[in-house]
Amino acid sequence: MALTPTQLDDIAAARAAEHQTRRPTVPALEALLYQALPVLDHGFVRVVDYMGDDAAVVQAARVSYGRGTRAANEDRGLIRYLMRHWHSTPFEMCEIKYHVKLPIFIARQWIRHRTANVNEYSARYSILDREFYLPAPEQLAAQSSDNRQGRGAPLQGEEAARVLDLLRQDAMQTYDHYAWMLNEGAADTPADPGRQGLARELARMNLTLNTYTQWYWKTDLHNLFQFLRLRADAHAQYEIRAYAEVMLDTVQAWVPACHEAFLDYRMGAATFSAGMLGVVRRLLAGEPVAQPDSGLSKREWRELMETLGRPVA
Amino acid sequence: MALTPTQLDDIAAARAAEHQTRRPTVPALEALLYQALPVLDHGFVRVVDYMGDDAAVVQAARVSYGRGTRAANEDRGLIRYLMRHWHSTPFEMCEIKYHVKLPIFIARQWIRHRTANVNEYSARYSILDREFYLPAPEQLAAQSSDNRQGRGAPLQGEEAARVLDLLRQDAMQTYDHYAWMLNEGAADTPADPGRQGLARELARMNLTLNTYTQWYWKTDLHNLFQFLRLRADAHAQYEIRAYAEVMLDTVQAWVPACHEAFLDYRMGAATFSAGMLGVVRRLLAGEPVAQPDSGLSKREWRELMETLGRPVA
Amino acid sequence: MALTPTQLDDIAAARAAEHQTRRPTVPALEALLYQALPVLDHGFVRVVDYMGDDAAVVQAARVSYGRGTRAANEDRGLIRYLMRHWHSTPFEMCEIKYHVKLPIFIARQWIRHRTANVNEYSARYSILDREFYLPAPEQLAAQSSDNRQGRGAPLQGEEAARVLDLLRQDAMQTYDHYAWMLNEGAADTPADPGRQGLARELARMNLTLNTYTQWYWKTDLHNLFQFLRLRADAHAQYEIRAYAEVMLDTVQAWVPACHEAFLDYRMGAATFSAGMLGVVRRLLAGEPVAQPDSGLSKREWRELMETLGRPVA
Amino acid sequence: MALTPTQLDDIAAARAAEHQTRRPTVPALEALLYQALPVLDHGFVRVVDYMGDDAAVVQAARVSYGRGTRAANEDRGLIRYLMRHWHSTPFEMCEIKYHVKLPIFIARQWIRHRTANVNEYSARYSILDREFYLPAPEQLAAQSSDNRQGRGAPLQGEEAARVLDLLRQDAMQTYDHYAWMLNEGAADTPADPGRQGLARELARMNLTLNTYTQWYWKTDLHNLFQFLRLRADAHAQYEIRAYAEVMLDTVQAWVPACHEAFLDYRMGAATFSAGMLGVVRRLLAGEPVAQPDSGLSKREWRELMETLGRPVA
Repeated sequence: MALTPTQLDDIAAARAAEHQTRRPTVPALEALLYQALPVLDHGFVRVVDYMGDDAAVVQAARVSYGRGTRAANEDRGLIRYLMRHWHSTPFEMCEIKYHVKLPIFIARQWIRHRTANVNEYSARYSILDREFYLPAPEQLAAQSSDNRQGRGAPLQGEEAARVLDLLRQDAMQTYDHYAWMLNEGAADTPADPGRQGLARELARMNLTLNTYTQWYWKTDLHNLFQFLRLRADAHAQYEIRAYAEVMLDTVQAWVPACHEAFLDYRMGAATFSAGMLGVVRRLLAGEPVAQPDSGLSKREWRELMETLGRPVA
Repeated sequence: MALTPTQLDDIAAARAAEHQTRRPTVPALEALLYQALPVLDHGFVRVVDYMGDDAAVVQAARVSYGRGTRAANEDRGLIRYLMRHWHSTPFEMCEIKYHVKLPIFIARQWIRHRTANVNEYSARYSILDREFYLPAPEQLAAQSSDNRQGRGAPLQGEEAARVLDLLRQDAMQTYDHYAWMLNEGAADTPADPGRQGLARELARMNLTLNTYTQWYWKTDLHNLFQFLRLRADAHAQYEIRAYAEVMLDTVQAWVPACHEAFLDYRMGAATFSAGMLGVVRRLLAGEPVAQPDSGLSKREWRELMETLGRPVA
Repeated sequence: MALTPTQLDDIAAARAAEHQTRRPTVPALEALLYQALPVLDHGFVRVVDYMGDDAAVVQAARVSYGRGTRAANEDRGLIRYLMRHWHSTPFEMCEIKYHVKLPIFIARQWIRHRTANVNEYSARYSILDREFYLPAPEQLAAQSSDNRQGRGAPLQGEEAARVLDLLRQDAMQTYDHYAWMLNEGAADTPADPGRQGLARELARMNLTLNTYTQWYWKTDLHNLFQFLRLRADAHAQYEIRAYAEVMLDTVQAWVPACHEAFLDYRMGAATFSAGMLGVVRRLLAGEPVAQPDSGLSKREWRELMETLGRPVA
Repeated sequence: MALTPTQLDDIAAARAAEHQTRRPTVPALEALLYQALPVLDHGFVRVVDYMGDDAAVVQAARVSYGRGTRAANEDRGLIRYLMRHWHSTPFEMCEIKYHVKLPIFIARQWIRHRTANVNEYSARYSILDREFYLPAPEQLAAQSSDNRQGRGAPLQGEEAARVLDLLRQDAMQTYDHYAWMLNEGAADTPADPGRQGLARELARMNLTLNTYTQWYWKTDLHNLFQFLRLRADAHAQYEIRAYAEVMLDTVQAWVPACHEAFLDYRMGAATFSAGMLGVVRRLLAGEPVAQPDSGLSKREWRELMETLGRPVA
């Protein structure tokens, strides 16, 4: 994550600002504001604005005129109740805005979460930087042998080295050709006055999917939790999980009571189907149950045993 | 709009708060924050939080690291360009949250704007106050004779008096019966220990549609403009327009450059169909055009002439 | 639910139509199409159109060119997998459109589900019928003593009779005055040529919240499931649950494999928090656990014991 | 657009199906159903399902029980009225589902329209085909000199040839390396048993942005019109416009009255700001107006003169 001196100056200036406000503020999040929190090799997450706090969730749930005089632990109890019973609208009353720099193939996963506002840097209008994602050695994973959309162990030795070389060389070569086609003098590629230069909206198609892009992304707390539940999950692709985990930290700084309830009732929770519940009740009654007489498929049985921390067989 | 002493205290306490923030602030909107701006006979609009300002729109459009050093008139020019060319995402980067008290029949119009977050006071859970909307005499309008969903001139004399009496008496009587059915001692209706009391979620069905409700309503600036374009329009029902006009004032205080562009390119603008454009070109070329040879229907012709400020005939 | 002869003719004509199509059709749902399925005393649900079937969910999940040659039980397995793992987009590929007649206070609950398309009968433009909801005796419930938004046992004797009388009389009186204020000869109220008549958009405010309205409501299968999970649930208000249950039957006719997975993984399922999971594991290990040493609040403990079918104490 | 024999068989089988339905059908759209309508060099648009027709828009606007007996020209008049006055909900009552094959850099523009349902072919789960977009010579355009996000004239001679070579060679090379890294025997690249193969979710990052992807994309008619207004516009990038134009043809086959109103009131229409309207009125009154005394910026003045078909100077 190399920021230019101008970018660093802009960030420093924003952080130096001090304003008076009647709005609720969250000092722990103010401390993080505008900082570029590093993710992957060149990416980052920056919180650039926020609205609301834990109390705003409570206030909206009660449709109240002010912050009231209830004790903080009453607020915590209400927040836990709202989360446990799938209330969504009070959490929608908090809003956060991020500036994110991320590889394009991750941006394509991310954008599938539609209930958010996005402004992406336009490669139709501007020229992208020569920056692309290369996995760290421990992330250069083989295809999983038992999960069609998962990873196995990291590649080793010569294969690992060759894969990294290919990724790097192809990204550099396609970027060089992108700059040449543009013919605008970008990235130390001198412009040739004898050529016209290809339109930016076309030249970009030569870039590889690990090229970094960036966007402003704004969402409410309820939809952020939906995003984090899926993307901070162990089954998410590592590269997007890396972003989700940093964002989860910013949520903890921002709305600690909501964050705690989210960890308990969403991230650390498990949903049992009607059939699974039946098995749990039989087990609790002391009845021995095995997969064949459980009414569950082998796959469901395995998932249930893993959740209960019991041996699968 | 009668607020209780407790509510007034809550508002005063919120207004007295002073916090330090690194976020952009808008002093003109801070001055309005939390105040109950009166609308109709008992309603109000209160701005209870906001995120972003004019510069945030520009910042998102440019995906920049800070506020930059451009002159304010460059920002204004960009905002006008974005509005004129129907860019929506930069305006989505600003967010505002209102607390609104409004009659139920207006809430039902309002809620049709779906891209917003809402927490409404629950008559399933709580007891509504004895407050209902009664039109001022100049708003007690007859049905329009030429527009099936419009108003004519105000009713006069005995008819006006009788209508107002009916509205008032029916609202009071149905509320009295609501309180009696609840049997909870609400609104000075003593509870009878010999009765159980009807469930709140049922008793509420006896209230009339002019009863006041309230909600927290949060939306982004783009969707707020969509709301205001329709609801601050001369064709909107007066009662919702009264809310929209107060909200338009808060937008002016909040994002003056966006507000100016909105007035010019949306509220004060007119869209001409392909057929209407053809007529305008012929007129500008000095050709006399009348409705029968215009290719427009009578209704379209009338709408065009009104927009151009010309006699219809 | 009294339909006029014209309405019955319209429905019969629609049901009599036979068209050829290359689109997938679902005979069990075609059999229900356009019929007014009764709900409450005057309401109904009519399926007026649909798109897709069980196979369309599978087809979208696989992004395939046709229906393929897989066995039906493979499709069922994939649908169950998608539901269990919270995939939402394949279920969004099916769409259904209902025509619903319902009391206004229920319409106000319903409309909070925003991801749907709605066209409501306009009382600004047209005149509402004299039809209002009156609970059946077994639904005329007292306020719950232990749940602020729930119902207790039905009211009895004189109190029940008096409540029903008040609901009926107030609805009839306010409707009579509505018709009088309109002065359009509606509902056998003769128009008086000496009066102008109040604008429809104003007169409607005199109606009570149990007046029936109607709308076209269209949504995709994923969002319909979200609606049904909340509204067919035992904690939902009876009056909206009555609609949800009829709609659930239409879903069973339409997409039986999705319906089965929904019952198993949503309606009949339970989500255990991290803390609850810990208690279940300790119980399964044979450890006696009581609320005070469970780490759960009393309320959570009670909810957990109920889900597990164990005594609370 | 090369479809495999299996794909062609699947399409032929779907087209051969004949079902009876009570739902409205549109023969002109049935005739197109499932066909792969070619776009660009390897892309296509296929209509795979639809719901509703012109009459369904009218039916929803009137909340009626059937199709009624009104004349077709009354329906057309109502549709034009709804479009002219920005009514959106009746158009939301029609739904269409497409299967689209398109280059990734176009998919990234497209997905910014969020009010739609999408299932994309997963390169995390499956292997992409060796197919990439190469512009036809007349589309290999230079960067516009006066519009930062526009195109100028096509490149010529050696520059054109070299650009095409680079695009082709880079796409082929990065795809070859993608197949090599996968080591699954894809695209005639033999698998080496001595290597593990990189995870699919990682290998995909080496592909260029002109690689083709495909998805199911479903939306309602109102949101489809929003998409087409922006993407079938002359200012849209040619490659997405090519898709929009084919989709516009399918809309004409499907809902001809809505299509006609859309062309007249949206595609062929122009919106005049308050300031522009003032200029038009002065011109119509015979007053000579030039830019400096128009109150418009130079850019607005030029846009207005172009819309009015007058010389800019």
